[in-house]
Amino acid sequence: MTSSEFSTKGSYVTGGEFNRDTNYIEDRIVADPDAIRALPTAQSSTIGQLGAGLTEGAEAWPVEPGRYRLVAARACPWANRTLIVRRLLGLEDVISVGLPGPTHDVRSWTFDLDENGKDPVLGTERLQENYFKRYPDYPRGITVPAMVDIPSGGVVTNNYPQITLDFSTEWKEFHREGAPDLLPAHLMDEMWPVIKRVFTEVNNGVYRAGFAGTQSAYDDAYSRLWVAMDWLEDRLRRQRFLMGETITEADVRLFTTLVRFDPVYHGHFKCNRNKLADMPNLWGYARELFQTPGFGDTVDFDQIKKHYYVVHEDINPTQIVPVGPDLSNWLEPHGREKFGGSPFGDGTAPEPPREDELVVPEHNPLYS
Amino acid sequence: MTSSEFSTKGSYVTGGEFNRDTNYIEDRIVADPDAIRALPTAQSSTIGQLGAGLTEGAEAWPVEPGRYRLVAARACPWANRTLIVRRLLGLEDVISVGLPGPTHDVRSWTFDLDENGKDPVLGTERLQENYFKRYPDYPRGITVPAMVDIPSGGVVTNNYPQITLDFSTEWKEFHREGAPDLLPAHLMDEMWPVIKRVFTEVNNGVYRAGFAGTQSAYDDAYSRLWVAMDWLEDRLRRQRFLMGETITEADVRLFTTLVRFDPVYHGHFKCNRNKLADMPNLWGYARELFQTPGFGDTVDFDQIKKHYYVVHEDINPTQIVPVGPDLSNWLEPHGREKFGGSPFGDGTAPEPPREDELVVPEHNPLYS
Repeated sequence: MTSSEFSTKGSYVTGGEFNRDTNYIEDRIVADPDAIRALPTAQSSTIGQLGAGLTEGAEAWPVEPGRYRLVAARACPWANRTLIVRRLLGLEDVISVGLPGPTHDVRSWTFDLDENGKDPVLGTERLQENYFKRYPDYPRGITVPAMVDIPSGGVVTNNYPQITLDFSTEWKEFHREGAPDLLPAHLMDEMWPVIKRVFTEVNNGVYRAGFAGTQSAYDDAYSRLWVAMDWLEDRLRRQRFLMGETITEADVRLFTTLVRFDPVYHGHFKCNRNKLADMPNLWGYARELFQTPGFGDTVDFDQIKKHYYVVHEDINPTQIVPVGPDLSNWLEPHGREKFGGSPFGDGTAPEPPREDELVVPEHNPLYS
Repeated sequence: MTSSEFSTKGSYVTGGEFNRDTNYIEDRIVADPDAIRALPTAQSSTIGQLGAGLTEGAEAWPVEPGRYRLVAARACPWANRTLIVRRLLGLEDVISVGLPGPTHDVRSWTFDLDENGKDPVLGTERLQENYFKRYPDYPRGITVPAMVDIPSGGVVTNNYPQITLDFSTEWKEFHREGAPDLLPAHLMDEMWPVIKRVFTEVNNGVYRAGFAGTQSAYDDAYSRLWVAMDWLEDRLRRQRFLMGETITEADVRLFTTLVRFDPVYHGHFKCNRNKLADMPNLWGYARELFQTPGFGDTVDFDQIKKHYYVVHEDINPTQIVPVGPDLSNWLEPHGREKFGGSPFGDGTAPEPPREDELVVPEHNPLYS
């Protein structure tokens, strides 16, 4: 890829450097649509925002149990965030979930894992159909996660940085008892810069390395990534979680990259100064989150590996998926209790996942 | 690659499975040509042989100081063997060395690192010219290592498994004082099967994984490789070197694969159950060899990485070379003294490399 070129992933490469398309359907599902509409128009944000109005052209949809379906491929790190937050907050019974398979063709994620290749609720084979039901000429990438309006079948929003924030703030009425506050007000001033840096340098940083079109773009991306990884390693040398003693939205956003690091980013994206497992604090932190209900139980390592190695034919033309790495070490004791605190603070851990949403046992060491 | 197809590497892929071309120029350079000619015709061997005659159609050339030039790219593991044995035995002053650069085009290794792009002794730009001086229509891969007859400029042999054995046995008169016996007679019955298994399962096993044309060929190759790696890890849990208390030819042959394992085979060839550095005995053993004069001082990590990642465009189409892994850990104490013995036994370590054969310091942690 040498010129500006869009892909299904919602991204493009210009002059050798990878850029993420930040142009999403920015509608929101909110507790009080009128109140949001009354606020001043907001600017788009790559990390989402709290207390802001709608962005230009966006609509407000009402929170309503059972009305929306979250379409979220387990393979995708951005979708994985929504699966985790939905679990942590106990929104399973009010927001159903559709799970496209790990690979997709050049135009769309597909419901190939479902019976007859159709999502059982939406009745569609390709997520693209749901984008077209909303906008018949939808011109951009068909991305997950997407919140779909079940009655009309149309996509309401695919604006992933906002979806998890709205799960926390707009769906509060439907949170389970004991749900954690992932956005503690007293921490937000400190949390936004952390979330921003994790996004630009780590979540997106691995893609910048992996999709670099030139050696020098890659070299720069590699350096940037490891500065951030060292920063995180140092931060987690002093505290149990990114923001202190309990889990927050910032941890969710970091976790989905860390869990893919050794299986995919280390080799496939050439992020190979060292493995995650070579950084004692980050690795202990990642293991603790993996072992925490709501995190690891959303992870399907086979789908993750298959997605990257099969879909990115431009960097892995054989489409052969590595058998490694050995994943049994994710269950080793993490030893992070020494820092005090606990994942859910005053709250409680969620119940185990619903039977019909269990990860294939062979794809996750928690179950195999 | 789906059909039978030769490459510069002297290999081809059939039905998804990688096969190494075992058809080499099997002439030999020997102390007593007439005596070798008088022996019964020998069968070709992928691991070489001792005390055997010439193979069908092969010729015997006389050992003669200064007459032959070893052409051996530092990048190539098969050539690396010859550079190590030449150093260990102190043959630098009797067999000169030509060093092609790490990358080559589809037809030949080239002397691109030399002034004006020509080997200063042979005067050729491409090793292919030296093959053609011997056989004008030479049809097979232009491979290193190659022993070239300097007066005629023609390749004498590229039969790599035999070259190092002949360095030990046929060039004995010219070994340095204190040179180790890499082929101790009392160990050979045990050593051949070890050498054979290391060749088929490890030296060649990593290529079988990396060049597999189908998922199932790769899966099989991966399993085979790790059975052998576990066997080696277990063997080295009990003894300092592969054959016991001192280094032998078997160690040379294993080392050249191990030193490339984490920088290349782990990611590029998808040999990623774990890193070499995750196997305490193999990793300590590899570090000790790396730190032993004659081994690590022949290694150019930059050339190694560049070779694989640039030349194998079919599996790395961007030709981007990873910056990692961090290599400083090669110098950590190996702790292998606890097993007793010593690398050179009754002999001595070789002197440091000649000034004009030093690896670029930035390419090897021994010097940087």
